[in-house]
Amino acid sequence: MTVYIFEFIGTCLLILLGNGVVANLVLKDTKGSSTGWVGISLAWGIAVFVGVFVSADISGAHLNPAVTVGLATAGKFAWHLVPGYIVAQILGAMMGNLLVWLNYKKHYDATQDQAAILATFSTSPAIRSPFWNLATEVIGTFTLVFAVFYIAGGTVSDQPISLGSIDALPVALLVMGIGFGLGGPTGYAINPARDFGPRLMHALLPLKGKGGSDWSYAWIPIIGPFLGGFLAAITYLLIGI
Amino acid sequence: MTVYIFEFIGTCLLILLGNGVVANLVLKDTKGSSTGWVGISLAWGIAVFVGVFVSADISGAHLNPAVTVGLATAGKFAWHLVPGYIVAQILGAMMGNLLVWLNYKKHYDATQDQAAILATFSTSPAIRSPFWNLATEVIGTFTLVFAVFYIAGGTVSDQPISLGSIDALPVALLVMGIGFGLGGPTGYAINPARDFGPRLMHALLPLKGKGGSDWSYAWIPIIGPFLGGFLAAITYLLIGI
Amino acid sequence: MTVYIFEFIGTCLLILLGNGVVANLVLKDTKGSSTGWVGISLAWGIAVFVGVFVSADISGAHLNPAVTVGLATAGKFAWHLVPGYIVAQILGAMMGNLLVWLNYKKHYDATQDQAAILATFSTSPAIRSPFWNLATEVIGTFTLVFAVFYIAGGTVSDQPISLGSIDALPVALLVMGIGFGLGGPTGYAINPARDFGPRLMHALLPLKGKGGSDWSYAWIPIIGPFLGGFLAAITYLLIGI
Amino acid sequence: MTVYIFEFIGTCLLILLGNGVVANLVLKDTKGSSTGWVGISLAWGIAVFVGVFVSADISGAHLNPAVTVGLATAGKFAWHLVPGYIVAQILGAMMGNLLVWLNYKKHYDATQDQAAILATFSTSPAIRSPFWNLATEVIGTFTLVFAVFYIAGGTVSDQPISLGSIDALPVALLVMGIGFGLGGPTGYAINPARDFGPRLMHALLPLKGKGGSDWSYAWIPIIGPFLGGFLAAITYLLIGI
Repeated sequence: MTVYIFEFIGTCLLILLGNGVVANLVLKDTKGSSTGWVGISLAWGIAVFVGVFVSADISGAHLNPAVTVGLATAGKFAWHLVPGYIVAQILGAMMGNLLVWLNYKKHYDATQDQAAILATFSTSPAIRSPFWNLATEVIGTFTLVFAVFYIAGGTVSDQPISLGSIDALPVALLVMGIGFGLGGPTGYAINPARDFGPRLMHALLPLKGKGGSDWSYAWIPIIGPFLGGFLAAITYLLIGI
Repeated sequence: MTVYIFEFIGTCLLILLGNGVVANLVLKDTKGSSTGWVGISLAWGIAVFVGVFVSADISGAHLNPAVTVGLATAGKFAWHLVPGYIVAQILGAMMGNLLVWLNYKKHYDATQDQAAILATFSTSPAIRSPFWNLATEVIGTFTLVFAVFYIAGGTVSDQPISLGSIDALPVALLVMGIGFGLGGPTGYAINPARDFGPRLMHALLPLKGKGGSDWSYAWIPIIGPFLGGFLAAITYLLIGI
Repeated sequence: MTVYIFEFIGTCLLILLGNGVVANLVLKDTKGSSTGWVGISLAWGIAVFVGVFVSADISGAHLNPAVTVGLATAGKFAWHLVPGYIVAQILGAMMGNLLVWLNYKKHYDATQDQAAILATFSTSPAIRSPFWNLATEVIGTFTLVFAVFYIAGGTVSDQPISLGSIDALPVALLVMGIGFGLGGPTGYAINPARDFGPRLMHALLPLKGKGGSDWSYAWIPIIGPFLGGFLAAITYLLIGI
Repeated sequence: MTVYIFEFIGTCLLILLGNGVVANLVLKDTKGSSTGWVGISLAWGIAVFVGVFVSADISGAHLNPAVTVGLATAGKFAWHLVPGYIVAQILGAMMGNLLVWLNYKKHYDATQDQAAILATFSTSPAIRSPFWNLATEVIGTFTLVFAVFYIAGGTVSDQPISLGSIDALPVALLVMGIGFGLGGPTGYAINPARDFGPRLMHALLPLKGKGGSDWSYAWIPIIGPFLGGFLAAITYLLIGI
């Protein structure tokens, strides 16, 4: 049970600080309207750092179903733990976004722009194109999970691997790099829980004058990351080191 | 006595570099007017790094009454040291802000905007709303103190914990993340000494054409952080790891 | 063969994340148009971090023919491995840029500006001047390779040296510093593979309405970095520590 | 002799990357005009990192006469080495700025603004006021040297101390923090060699249409840092830990 609690906590911290910076940037009358893409990329990486650092030594800090499934695919994580990890990650992401909402309550009330409000929960594409948006999420998550194999496990190939708190900084820099370099087209969900949990929370919360939760897009930041993580695991196995 | 001196020094460095960047951003005719929220968030985190690094190995680098009380609540810090720590932190914060004033003396003289001058001392809300401003300070400080438990003490649960210089970087990144992600509504005091000490200094200093010190808001960045730190300690004990 | 594969992977990650941020900045309708030079410099450094971290413990993470030749010149790397390393680096750079193109496909389609499209592949000078552009590339690469000697090998002088994953952060900061400080005139190729591989890819890819690949400039970011790396090796040997 | 060579090299790298970013920001037609104060503060810190990392394990990486004299005042560095260190630092700073000029040659030629050209060599105050400018330089250098004592030597008090490469990151963050927080009024020389060496180089170089070297201000970034470093040493001794 403890590992699930720390996956919950880690993912909650990730979304709280990560979607918090989006709220700071896009909601009305906050102090952070000058944050820009540099701030978004740095802050999401830092959010990863905090979430990983707190949870890593207990749960291994996946905080992301694509990482969990990727590791399991490569034989580095027990399949029977996968469902519990994913549930914990989704619930943690929902909790994190609930706290973002409470933290920025008056600014949500002051914001008219429905797309801005949704952006503080889920990702959306800059140019809508299911195939290419999916490709972007696959590439981003492939990069994430592929590098995580080498950060977490070095080159040792025949035992379980997981992140420790010592890995928090490399993984944080990795996610900063993906944000800067690959986040432009879709806002880099690269994590099914990061997108689905908050989208569900967006649908549930009594947000004043909110629009729809854009469910027609929701499958892309779920399928894309799972596919990217799976391909990363296969590639890792093929390389064999 | 030595521990109090280093709490004083650490908090002084924190406020000197932290409120220094606010002064650089908001006062007239400085070189740093392009700093923006990215600079504010990065620089406050760096200020934490410097303050913690210098003081940690001697005093444990709380630099924040909410951390001190949170640790004591969780049985990780001796209650009889608490009053001295808090006094040292407040005096250190006052001293730090005095040095900010001396550093930017000509720019204070050149600045007409009373809100800008006060901002180089104490926090103020973007949208004034006692309940929600308090909520924001509670959430931010909860995040800070909760994560500090795991940064400082790992998972060892039955002995005193304190920060060492090795923890300066994780705590600095944590505070950067809170600034980026949660600082938008209230400017993230998340530290009673950081807000009260400088506000007192604002009231005392002979600032040309200064306005009031906004004492009606002063209780929020005191009560909110204490409450957040207390809740973090309770949550930490409930998790029990 | 394994070392070549990891040079390929490391250089691929370097270019994917590095030229990715350029694409995010200059292509039409991305989310990262506010990235600016701060983002460019930070992100290229982070791209170096990821590429080095993943490949260092296997191939030594040169990721750059100027580093490879510089190390070989100083007697720190076997000459017979040099051709394979350079081929792997060029192919990795091409692969990385192919993935940038796929990641930003719809934004390439939406972009009319031929110079912007080329900028997501290869470097170009701010003020065209073969001699001085060459000088800039020599100075930048000299700085890179000279510092790499001390980062990788400390002061031990009579055995092979190579980067390990522990060196990823210092090298990343070094490249950030070169970007900020020396990148202004030519966009700091400081790496023949980083410029030539992508330029070749630009010539090969069916980019809608692309212009020429500016081959007349191509020799500068090849010769300049080789010359800079060579001079760094000579200087390192002369210092003799 | 070797220690002097590495003080020369370290200070050269510091000024090359540090004044390089100023050149990138203020000269005409570079790619880095969006750098802003965030870039300036980050890049100078990174420049410190590179300079310290390369030289620390050999010379102790003072790179700054105020650090050298501060350490000697506190009995942590041999007085007979002081003159050689200072000469090496000044020559290194001159060499670094010569390379900045070569790196940006065409952009110097394109720049009419004499103040911008001088800014790529030496510091100047935002509001000219000898007394308060001096105070700012004293406060900044006091902060630098005081913190360096604890970074370099921890709490051990009765033997020589010097920076090692492990200290490069803390010192870099310290200088970033000083830039963000205290650099607004004078551009934070906090280092006599960093200001005097380049000012001399400005006077010597055949810069097209350059103005005066503002020698009337030159004493402030020399006396201020020495005074700040001296006061830091005295304070360190008084604290006695």
